[in-house]
Formats: sequence, structure tokens, C-alpha cells
Amino acid sequence: MPITPRTLSGFKDRLPKEAYAKSQMLKSIIHSFQKFGFSPIETPHLEYAEILTKQGSDEIQKEMYRFKDHGNREVALRFDLTLPLARFIAQYKNILGLPFKRYCIGNVFRGERAQKGRYREFTQCDFDFIGTTSIGSDLEILEVIYQTLKELKIQNFTIYINHRKIFNGLCEYLEAKEYVNDILRIIDKIDKIGKEAVERELKQSTPLSQEQIHILLDFISKKQTSNATSLLQDIQSYKSLNSQLKEGIEELESLCSLLSLVIPENFYAINLSIARGLGYYTGIIYETILKDLPSLGSVCSGGRYDKLTQNFTQEELSGVGASIGLDRLLSGLEELKLIDSKDTPANLLIIPLYTLNYAYESAKGLRELGLKVEVYPEITKAKKAFAYANNKNYQWVMVLGEEEQKEQSYSLKNMQSGLQEKYVSLQSVYEKLYQLP
Amino acid sequence: MPITPRTLSGFKDRLPKEAYAKSQMLKSIIHSFQKFGFSPIETPHLEYAEILTKQGSDEIQKEMYRFKDHGNREVALRFDLTLPLARFIAQYKNILGLPFKRYCIGNVFRGERAQKGRYREFTQCDFDFIGTTSIGSDLEILEVIYQTLKELKIQNFTIYINHRKIFNGLCEYLEAKEYVNDILRIIDKIDKIGKEAVERELKQSTPLSQEQIHILLDFISKKQTSNATSLLQDIQSYKSLNSQLKEGIEELESLCSLLSLVIPENFYAINLSIARGLGYYTGIIYETILKDLPSLGSVCSGGRYDKLTQNFTQEELSGVGASIGLDRLLSGLEELKLIDSKDTPANLLIIPLYTLNYAYESAKGLRELGLKVEVYPEITKAKKAFAYANNKNYQWVMVLGEEEQKEQSYSLKNMQSGLQEKYVSLQSVYEKLYQLP
Repeated sequence: MPITPRTLSGFKDRLPKEAYAKSQMLKSIIHSFQKFGFSPIETPHLEYAEILTKQGSDEIQKEMYRFKDHGNREVALRFDLTLPLARFIAQYKNILGLPFKRYCIGNVFRGERAQKGRYREFTQCDFDFIGTTSIGSDLEILEVIYQTLKELKIQNFTIYINHRKIFNGLCEYLEAKEYVNDILRIIDKIDKIGKEAVERELKQSTPLSQEQIHILLDFISKKQTSNATSLLQDIQSYKSLNSQLKEGIEELESLCSLLSLVIPENFYAINLSIARGLGYYTGIIYETILKDLPSLGSVCSGGRYDKLTQNFTQEELSGVGASIGLDRLLSGLEELKLIDSKDTPANLLIIPLYTLNYAYESAKGLRELGLKVEVYPEITKAKKAFAYANNKNYQWVMVLGEEEQKEQSYSLKNMQSGLQEKYVSLQSVYEKLYQLP
Repeated sequence: MPITPRTLSGFKDRLPKEAYAKSQMLKSIIHSFQKFGFSPIETPHLEYAEILTKQGSDEIQKEMYRFKDHGNREVALRFDLTLPLARFIAQYKNILGLPFKRYCIGNVFRGERAQKGRYREFTQCDFDFIGTTSIGSDLEILEVIYQTLKELKIQNFTIYINHRKIFNGLCEYLEAKEYVNDILRIIDKIDKIGKEAVERELKQSTPLSQEQIHILLDFISKKQTSNATSLLQDIQSYKSLNSQLKEGIEELESLCSLLSLVIPENFYAINLSIARGLGYYTGIIYETILKDLPSLGSVCSGGRYDKLTQNFTQEELSGVGASIGLDRLLSGLEELKLIDSKDTPANLLIIPLYTLNYAYESAKGLRELGLKVEVYPEITKAKKAFAYANNKNYQWVMVLGEEEQKEQSYSLKNMQSGLQEKYVSLQSVYEKLYQLP
């Protein structure tokens, strides 16, 4: 009985075009991370379940792939790269030295309800700065977001910035401190469900009065009139309400005094409604929206968390970091037709019409010069190989028949124009083609 | 109660030095695969268990991580990249077009008994050529092995080549055709356990007589006197024994007539004792040994298999391919001190003694010129930052104090010599440092 070839619901294969685009993106992302001196680390896909169970929302806990291994240990597939980082830092902090900057790129697993654009396995690209509370580290994470998206040739995006202490301070002022996580979770949905629905839900799920809800919603709806500083000036008076509000606003002020040095002002904005559902953030938080496709949601989010290693050690280590949701970003760029996609990485297909020797020797020579070259693997009829070349969208093919071999020449055919020209050296072929991407 | 931070037995974290070396190797490997026109694909880590259960040895089946997911489906973590490839090809062959060349780099999972150098999660780099039986495709896979190891700056290795039909033909001649998989499995251990132990085990586990065992072991012990062709000449007379032997020897002859065009003769050899334990190979097979560390075992193995998609479709598709065991190769190169390891990808650490602004602005300028630059994230005492720089083995640091900021100058300090020099432009700093790796 043959088995039906299929993937699990919510899991995805990538065919060459898309996989090539993703690999090119990864190359750019790694280049960008390394340019800032972030070091790579690797942790396993599988961990002791207890390492992953103490943090993360209830929902994420339910979605975790958890099972018993051959030694009857409770194990689980990681659902993010942050909890493994916490374990990693607790385990090696004495070897690593602090502050410590790392990036980590890998797949994570969540058994979510399958829906369009949501997958159960997806790639995250995390970069974090551990063991310092300096505003410099906050600044740099934001600068890396900006530079990485630029490196990916994305032109039109905004990084929205907020501070968790401002939000906490406001809840404290409204005497709703113990409901702050519920309020956060509801506010986090404002872009999806709208202001009215948020208002209704706040009324149902929290003890906030109508008036308090209005104060809250008015506050988080405040918009920049010109730049980030203008909004911070608008909320100056809130500093006097309590220390949380004072600290939050002041920290944003320090950050903004440096930010325009490294990021053009039209690429970031203070947005007081950014909540980041997860409870563990304690300082600045941010989301990144593609202006041409805001419905995609944030493609790079993060913030500062002060209790990273709290499950493992009493020593408190503060961290700040962000994560690029690579698959979401790729699907967005596909929709915007901004991806660098190719059917093959090669620049040229060599077609052997007479012998294999001459084809493989020529290919070797061209690769040594620097070209990416595929050889059609069989001595073939030109027509069959041209169909193969067209299917792969080759712009150029090299036809090597008996004549070419005897003359030691190389016929190059442009697949668009159909024009064919003979070259007498591999060097001259290389000079014709080396500018191909 | 704090949780002890630890990984599962057989699973490995990689700290920056090693992770950086691995990421540099991956970059070279991808570059090499793409140079030959192999396209990337991606398949999930998790598959329906039935996709993975019909092939692979009993041992591998036992080692598989298998469990029920949230929807009560039987799922399993992939233990190689070949079975997912078989599913992938069966599923998309009409879209992909044949012949199809792909590479796939990813982690696989086997719950093996933990032992030195063996991990339960490891990275494989597979490249395969599907849908052609041309000798050109066999040739190219071997050429890719050679070029990729060269790209990794490995100088001293041998690719050992054999043909499964020669082995099958010999077993047929010895009237032991139905024991061929047992014999293969035993012969495969010859490098580990030695010839005498193999002889004992063949006597115990197969019906081969003492004389037959000697014929078999004499045959597979034949060595090249000079090059590959010399050994093929030595076994010419075996062609007349049966069609399997004839075909196997002839196919190796065709291959060797082309091979020296693309691989220098001292990098490959026919080795009649190469067995590749797995049953699914049907044509040429090969292993790659680092000459300076033969005890490591093969770092890149593969061969031709004619029944790749047999579980999914009646249509027979032949493939040929190989897999680099990246973690094993990395550990070998570590042992041979051949890895490109660094504590940080950055070329330079900037130390802000006076303001953060000047440090971040200078870093931004140097990155735009092309350097990789880390900024120490706090205004600090020089001593503390120098200790950080030493810990990370920085060769150069840039010290920016009040004087430098007022003059708009940059002091560059060589951490080995201790010498410090002032520069008046970022361009001149760049020119000093741009040749750093």
C-alpha cells in the first residue's frame, strides 16, 4: 500500500524558489547581526520540559509539543528562543562574561490552531544583549532592527516604541495594578479588534470604571504631532503621578535623545498603545510594522526584561532583545513582491550535446573564475535541455556540440533573445556573464 | 525552587567560538552547493511517523523520537534528510521537473546511546541529484564533495569509492544472495573491529564457509597499486562471473575515466571494502576520510539509490547524493586545529569613556565603511573595558574620551603591543583595519 506523501497540518515545505529567498534573507540577517558584534550560539531543539514550562503564557504552554523520550524523561520542543537563552545564560554566564551579546537563529514549535499565515513550526532570528541596563544596549537593539531591515532592502517600515513602566504607572494611578496583565492582554488586541471592542472587554474583564477606561484609552491613543520628542513633551505632566510613570517617560526621553543619531526619524515613533502581550517585559518594548502591509502585524518585536534567569538563579540579570519572525516577514515580502527569488542559484546551464568531458571541464573552469554553473547531466538533444533551461528561467545557456569541442570554443545562447554567439575562451565567457546576480 | 540549567543527555549547546566556526563552515558549504546549481529546499523537522517508518534500519527505527501530537496523530522527528526528500519528491515532482538537484541543511534526531562524539541531535548537509541515472550525476556528486572540502580549507582527505553491484555480484557468486544485507552490515564494521572479528562474525551469522569467507575477504582487501584504474584492471576477470559484477566494474570504469578531469587523482581511490551499512544503495557508494584523523570515520558519505520514492509511488526514480556530517567534521577539524574560530565576529571594540553619542556615531560610520564593530554599551573606566576586550581576544580597540570627542579624533589601541595611535578620520581608521578577517 503506497503512503500518501503529505506534511502535517500547520507544517510547511519550501520549494527552491522560496527556500532560496529565505536563504538569501538569512545571509543578510547574519551579516547584519555580525556587523554589530553579536556572536552566534546554538541550543538544542529539544529540552527538558521543566526548562520551558515555568514561563510563557498559558496558551503557549498548551500549545507545546511535549512527550516522553526513550529514557522516560519529560521533554519538549522549544516554542521560542528566549527560554533556552535563559537556561544557557544561567548555565554558562561565568564562562561567557558579561555583558554578553548573542544571536540565535532557529525553528520553534507551537501546536496552534492552523490558520492562514500561522504555522506550527517557524523560524525565529533572535538577538539579545544580556547583563547590562545601559541605555546603549536598548539603543543598539533598535539600531540593529533598523539596519537589518535596510540590509533586507525593506524601505518602508516604522518601529513603534513604548515603555512598560508607563503602562504600569498608569494602571497604578488607576488603582488597577493587580489587573495589569489582563489589561495588557486586552490592549494588545486593539489593532485587531478595534477600540470599541477593547472598551467592552475592559469593562467585562476588569474592575475599571467607564471613566477610568476612558482615561486609559485616551492616554494610549495620544499620537505624535511631529516627532517622538513632541509626544514625550505632551505627557510631561504624567511624570508627577507616580515613580513608574516618571521613570518610564524619562527613560524614553534618554533613549530618544540618542536614537536620531542612528535611525532616521521617519523610521520610528513612540506609540503608547504598544503592549506586547507577554508579561515578562519590564522596560522599553517595540514592534515593527511594514507600512505597506500593516495587516501582517509586527515583523520584529522585543523589549527589555529584567528577570531573564529568575527560574534558575537568584542573581538577577537584565536583558534586552528582539526577534525577527522570518517566515512572517518572508510571506509579507512575497505579497509585496520584494523577495529575491530564483529557481536556481546558478548563472548558467551548460548543455553537453557531444561529450560529458568537455562540459564538466568547462564548468570547472568557469566555477574557478567565480561563476555558478549547472551542467545538464546527460548528453542530450538541444530541445530537451532548452525546455529544462526555460523551466528554470535560465537567462543564459552554453551549448557544447562536436564543433565547439573540436575548436575548443563555447557557444553562449541568450534564452530571451534566442541569439547565440561563440566565444574562444572561458575568460571571455566569464567577462560576459560575471555581472549576473 | 530553582531549576538546574542543563541540556538533555546527548544534546549539545554551542558557545560563541564553536557556533561561529560552524556558521562559517555553513557559509562555505552553501556557497559550494550553489556554485554547482543545487537549489535549497526545506522540509519540517516533524513528519507523520508513517513517512519515516518504512525505511531505515531496525536500529534507527528504535532510535526514532516518536509521539502523539495535539490532534492525536502519530508523529516523529526526522532522523535523516533522505526520507523527507523521498516524500518531497513524490509530492512535488510534477512541479519541480526532473532531473532535480537540491541541497538541504538541517538537524536530525536519533535517540542513540550517548557516547563520545555521538549526539542525539546533529546537523546534516545533504545534496542529491534526482531523476537521472547518468554517470554525469555520479561524477558531479563526487566533484561537489571534493570542492566543498577544499572550500572548507581541508587539504588532506581521500574519497573512497565502491559499487554496490560488485558486492552484490560477489555475494551472488558465493551463493549467499539472500544474506547480502547481513554481510554488508558486518563488513561495514571492518575498520572498527578489524578483519579477524569480521571473519568470526561472518562465520557465526551467515552460512558462508571458511573458504567462501576467505574469497570474500581477499577480494575486498585488494588495494590500488597506483591509481583507481590499476585496481579495476586487477579485477577485470571478475566481470565474467555474473552480470552484477560486470555492470558494477564497468560503471566504475566509466566513472573513473571522467573523474580525474575534475578531482586530482590523489584525492580519491577505489576501495572494495566500503560497504555503507544501509540497504537502500544500489550503485556507486563512497565515504570520505580525513587522512590525518582516520579514526573519526567518514565525514561525507553517500551513493546511488534506485528506489527513492518506492513507498509513495510506483514510478521508480533514481537518485544519487551525499551527506556531510557537519558536527562530526567540526569536531574533527577542532581536533586538528583547523577551525576558523573567533570569540566575536567583530573586528573592533569601541570604548566610550566620555559620551555614548560619539561612540555610536563612530560605530555607525565604520560599519557603513564595511567594518564589524562592537560598542561597549556603557560609559566606563578604560580598565574594565580592556578586560572585556581581552576576554574576547580583540586585537584592536578604539578609545573615545573627552579629548577625542572635542578634537573629533579616534584613538586606536593595539591590544597585543599596547601601542595607541590617534586618527583624524574614520576613513583612516578603516584603512588601518579593513584587512582584518
